[in-house]
Parts: sequence; C-alpha cells; structure tokens
Amino acid sequence: MKAEIISIGSEILRGQITDTNANFIAKKLVESGIDLEHISAVSDYPESLLSTLKLALQRSDLIITTGGLGPTEDDITYQVIAKALHLKLIKYPEAEENLKIFFKKINRTISPSNLKQIYLPEGAKIIINQYGTAPAMILVKDNKIICSFPGVPYEMKNLIEENLIPYLKEKFPPSMIKKSKILKITGLGEAAVNELIRGYINKQTDYSFGIYAHPEDIQVQVTTQAPTEKEVEKLLQSSVNQLTKILGNYIYGSDEETIEEVVGNLLKTKKLKLAVAESCTGGMLGEMLTRIPGSSEYFQGGVISYQAKIKEDLLKVPLEVITKHGEVSQQVARLMAEGVRINCHSNIGISITGIAGPGGATEKKKVGLVYMALADGKKTIIQKHQLFGNRQLIRIRACRRVLNMLRLHLLGSGFTSSYL
Amino acid sequence: MKAEIISIGSEILRGQITDTNANFIAKKLVESGIDLEHISAVSDYPESLLSTLKLALQRSDLIITTGGLGPTEDDITYQVIAKALHLKLIKYPEAEENLKIFFKKINRTISPSNLKQIYLPEGAKIIINQYGTAPAMILVKDNKIICSFPGVPYEMKNLIEENLIPYLKEKFPPSMIKKSKILKITGLGEAAVNELIRGYINKQTDYSFGIYAHPEDIQVQVTTQAPTEKEVEKLLQSSVNQLTKILGNYIYGSDEETIEEVVGNLLKTKKLKLAVAESCTGGMLGEMLTRIPGSSEYFQGGVISYQAKIKEDLLKVPLEVITKHGEVSQQVARLMAEGVRINCHSNIGISITGIAGPGGATEKKKVGLVYMALADGKKTIIQKHQLFGNRQLIRIRACRRVLNMLRLHLLGSGFTSSYL
Repeated sequence: MKAEIISIGSEILRGQITDTNANFIAKKLVESGIDLEHISAVSDYPESLLSTLKLALQRSDLIITTGGLGPTEDDITYQVIAKALHLKLIKYPEAEENLKIFFKKINRTISPSNLKQIYLPEGAKIIINQYGTAPAMILVKDNKIICSFPGVPYEMKNLIEENLIPYLKEKFPPSMIKKSKILKITGLGEAAVNELIRGYINKQTDYSFGIYAHPEDIQVQVTTQAPTEKEVEKLLQSSVNQLTKILGNYIYGSDEETIEEVVGNLLKTKKLKLAVAESCTGGMLGEMLTRIPGSSEYFQGGVISYQAKIKEDLLKVPLEVITKHGEVSQQVARLMAEGVRINCHSNIGISITGIAGPGGATEKKKVGLVYMALADGKKTIIQKHQLFGNRQLIRIRACRRVLNMLRLHLLGSGFTSSYL
Repeated sequence: MKAEIISIGSEILRGQITDTNANFIAKKLVESGIDLEHISAVSDYPESLLSTLKLALQRSDLIITTGGLGPTEDDITYQVIAKALHLKLIKYPEAEENLKIFFKKINRTISPSNLKQIYLPEGAKIIINQYGTAPAMILVKDNKIICSFPGVPYEMKNLIEENLIPYLKEKFPPSMIKKSKILKITGLGEAAVNELIRGYINKQTDYSFGIYAHPEDIQVQVTTQAPTEKEVEKLLQSSVNQLTKILGNYIYGSDEETIEEVVGNLLKTKKLKLAVAESCTGGMLGEMLTRIPGSSEYFQGGVISYQAKIKEDLLKVPLEVITKHGEVSQQVARLMAEGVRINCHSNIGISITGIAGPGGATEKKKVGLVYMALADGKKTIIQKHQLFGNRQLIRIRACRRVLNMLRLHLLGSGFTSSYL
C-alpha cells in the first residue's frame, strides 16, 4: 500500500510555520507498518489543492490531509475533496450537535461561519472532534482511502491516535513486524563509517541500512522485519552485533540515548563524581550534563572561568602559566581540569579552553582550536582539536569531544591520549 | 514564476526528522518576492525522486532541492537530476580542490567515497561549499532553474543566503518590496497580547499581522509592501512605532535579536561586568550569555553550584543558611547572587536555584519552583516563580526570566521587585 500526506495551508508555503504535522503522522504510519511515499505541502488555493489531490489519487492508496477544515473562507479541504471525487457535500447532524456542545462548553455562541464545518463529502465516516470545531473524516471510494484531519497539531494528534491508527491497524494488520535500531557514532566521519561497514552492508539481504550525518554525530540505522516480535528482535540484534563488532567503541549509544546520558550512567555505575571547568563553552558542558534527571548523583558542579582572573581565583591556575602559555593552551587546560577536580571535591575534573570565534584568533591559534583535559588524580590526559563550524557548532563539538574522551576513559579504552 | 522545493531523504518519510529546511527556504523566497507553490518530500529511491523531479519540471520554473549530496550510496540527487534532464555527470576540478582543502583543514584524509561528490550535471554552475564536502549548484536548462543544496541545515542555510538569494534577486528584481518585522515579547501571554493590540490591528488596511506563541516568547509579526525600499521601510516603521507604544517594555527585541544579545548590549553600553551562579540550570545561563561573540567584554564567568558544598566553598553561602532554608529558597538565591558578584569580580551577580524535576519536589516545594536573584552591590532583588513544562523547558524559562529581570533592571524599570 502506498501512503501519502498532504499538508494544506498557505502559511506553510509562506514560511510562517514549519510543517511538523507530517513528521508526527509519518512516525505513526511507520509504527503501523505502512510505508509513506510522499509528503506534500500546498496552499489554500482550490486549483493547487485540486491538482495535488488528483495526483495523489493516481499514485497513492491512502491519502491523509491535514488543515483547511476551519470556519474561514480559505478553509476549502472538504469542498475540493468532494470535487476531486465527484461527490456532493452533505450535512452531518452529529457535526452540528458537536458544534453546539463545543460552544456551550466555551460559553460562546456559534458564529454563522462555523456552520460550513458541518458539511462533509457524501459517504464519509465522520470523526467527531471533541478538541475543536472541525470534524475529521475517513472516506473510502474506489479502493482509495482519503482521510482529513484539522491542522491544529493538538487536535490532529489526538484525533489520529484515537481514530485513524486503530482503523488502519484493524484494516491492515501488518503481516510483518518492522523494527529499526539507530547506532550513534562519534569520532568518525560519514564517509569513514561508510567505508568500514560497506563490506558488511552490501552482503546483507534481510536488512536495510541508512547512514546519516548530523551536526553532533553519525547515525547508522538498521531496519528489518519478521512475522513475529520475537523473530524481528532476534534478527535486529544479530545485525547490531555485527555492526558493533566493526565499529566498536566508536558507537557511543543507540536510539534515543545521548552522550551525556551514556557518560552519566558510566559515572553512576562506577560511583564517581565529576566537575567541569569551562572557558569558551561558557557553561554548555554543565548544561548538557544536567539535562539528565538525577545527574546530581554524579555531577558536583563547576566553574565557568571565562576570564583569566576566575581561572586564577577559583581554579588556582597560576597567573604566570596563563601569561606564559596563553589562556588557550595545553598547560592551562591541564591546570583547569586538575583545579576543578580538587576545588569541586570530585574524582574527575574535565576542562575546555578554546577559541570559538569569530574573534580571538592569532597567527598561531586559529578559530576552532580547543584544548581539553581530564584529570583523575593519578594522571591528566590532554587533547588538542581543530574544530570547524560557526561559534555555536564549535562549542557543541568541543563539549561532545570532551564527553567522548571521558566516556572512553571510563570504559578503560586506551586511545584517548593519542591526540596530542 | 512558479517555485517548488523538494526535500530529499528517506529519514523525512520515516518520521525520523522534521523537514525544517523547506521552512527556511520558503521564508527566503518570500523575502525575495518569489511565490512558492509546492513543497514535497521524497525518499532516497531513485524512481521516487525521478518521478517527483519530472513532475516539478512540468509544473514549476524554479526547483530547489535539498539533501542527497553526501558521499554514501543513498545520496543520488545529482545522478537523478542528470537523468531527468538527459545530461552527463562530469568532474568539477574546483570541487576536488575544495575537498582537499576541507580535509586538510579538519586534519583527515579524503575517503574514496567522497570522490563521488565532485561529479555534477554538465552545465551546472557549481557552488563551492566551504562548510562541508558537498558542492551545491545552480543549473539552467530549457528556461527551468534547478538548484541543489546539501541537506545539513547549517551548510544549506549559509550556501543559500550567500549564493541563491543574490542570484535570484539579480535575475528577478521584485516589483513590490515586501518587508516584515517581528517584535518579540516576554512577560505577557498570547491572548493578553492579542487583547492589547487588537484595537489597533483591526483598524489597519496597509498591513497584515500575525501573533505567534513560542515556548520562549510571544512574537508579533507585521508585514507591509511598497514599490521602493525607502517607502516600505517608512511604512513598516510607522506600524512598529504604534505597536511599541502599546506594548512598551514587554518588547525585548525584534527579528533575530535574542534576549541574551539585548542584555549583552545593555551591559556593554553601561560598562558593567556580569557573573552568574547556577544551580538547577547547571550552566545554561552562562551558555546563553556566551553565545554572543564578544561577550567576554562584559561576562566574567560564574559558578555551577549544583551541590550545596560548592555553594558553600565557591560562593561563600553559609552552610547553616542552606540547612535552615533549603537549597531552593530566597535566602540561598540572594546569597548566591551576592557571592558570585564578589568572587567573580563583577558589578552584577545573578543567580538561579530551583526544582527542574521530575524528582526533587517536596510537599511545599513543587517541581517548577525557581528562585532567582540579582545583586548589584547596593541592593539585591529576588523573584520567585512557579514555572511549568518539562525539565528542559523549566530550565530555559528560568534563564529567560532572570535575563529579563536583568534587562528591566538595566533599563531602570521599576517592576522587577514586585514578584516576591
């Protein structure tokens, strides 16, 4: 079955809003085992919508529209669907009843323009909208299923989850259960990941793979299907095992896991306390670590040592070291990590000092130069990176690098000290 | 001229990512006076992309694609465009040169799979991508303009602003110039803003208005048009003046301005130094302030006092105050702000301490309770807020509240002390 989403509304094409509805529906369809082939956004002009609908009726079996069900003149979805399918619009008394109940609830009188909302294409199975005034519908004609939902995300989401998804699951019980796993990779580029796993990927017939580059990491997605939940889990795990063998410690987590969560869990397991000393990242590292509920179990806090004086006073970095080597130097990174470890009563101190730009660069120290250090009381590891991107990306990448350095250190992996 | 956007990537159709690129491009086209008629998202399958492209070539004059320019097997945009237009792919030496420069900059070796990225459809005007490995292009054939940009938002945005928009403006100078201004409001809800400005809005005929509610603020957009740049600017300014009269200090900035930028400019003008003491926000406030290039002119740094011991040691908050009133209390907020001001050598210290949740609440102190303080050496202002949302939203809102408190303080406005 081929499925298609049409998002209706000139405000999408004018760039006033991002179409987030399509993403929600796409997710729900995938979970129901239905493949989505097209997403389109069209304006409120009847001709645009009509041609888009006609095309959809040719190429798709299931068409889901959102938007254009309101009370104003530019809400034309039901009229155009009726035209495309050569159907009349007829009055649905249950829609009229719902309007009355709704307006009574909000203590207003029905405005005449709301009355157009009670007319739907003939033959439609109406879905009463208890969240607003616009009724939704499911319409089956000539083996095509056309469904329309309001564009207001809150109404659309509730109505789709409560009505469309159960309808689709009953009508099209998935013969195969499909599952995906995302492996999240750091420390390798997209092309390098591709080269490492291509040999394996190309030999597989039971799986599909995708490699995606994000600003923060590279993600490998593996998807497979089987008739039962148990079989699909087994099949998926087998591929994940193979990929893990190839990619090893470059994989930092899977699916919704974040690097700060992975690091947090390692610290919790090892009962270690962490403190941070941040210069160019200005608090971002601490902010990331404290996104995790319960991070107070292992995160002590830290110092935002944006100015040299704070490095000296709160981290006890001697002023002469700063003067001699500069604030962005391996010597200062080391003393920041060691200083914050002691002054914030932690087992491990990590630090970042760098040039996030656009200003602050010198002949020898370019924008993107970042030193980071990890001190555990026995030794201090220092890394030097030349990062790229704009100011914010350099800062994000610096935080992720130092968190990865910490992750590998906690895993007991050797290759964190090889950078400098 | 009819314009169309095609977003390429199976991850959009599988619901893994929301297509935010189309929204950015739509906005830019509107600003250039070009009407967008269609937005489509298609998967990485060559047949899907080919049929979508063929349809676009029939119905549109300007086609902008994003995505599918990477080094992996599923990156097929240039191959499919070449096929749709019956063109050969040829090697662009400048793309090869750029790859070499790029990989040298990030200190990695070029992977063989990156080499596919130097082949573009014959006749394309190549756009060198200094932000990544994938070159973009503008291709004119049979009076159709086909442009391709990478899917990575950061690369796409820069390349479109620097190349496509100037190209379109030169080729299609708009007859009417349309301009918008966004006024950003904090401290009022959407309905309250609507009620305040409705009287004014309803009387206007030369303008269109929109009120949008975001998680961080409320935005009022005013749009107008005129034949010349000067006229449209004058017209727009006149409405902005009226709205500013009504909304006053609730407006913290306009267009791309952020609250941290506005506060930074005020501090710079007044030659004041700022330090932060953060508990539940864990560094977020410092991170926001240091997003601004040049923030070292007024931002000294601060302390992430996640644990009580750090409040005591680095901020000199007496342990007995913490024990008596609790870490989340007006007394501790006050002493944190006063302590960080002195210990970080600043004119002003601001602090946040609260319960971001989901854990940590007590009978009397619910999730979302946040105390914040501002100390300037003469007096200390304290606010108490009961914020709503999830952990991250509560933290964001706390930071924005304290920055707004600082903004109003720097403006000399009286109503910051009225909360507690």
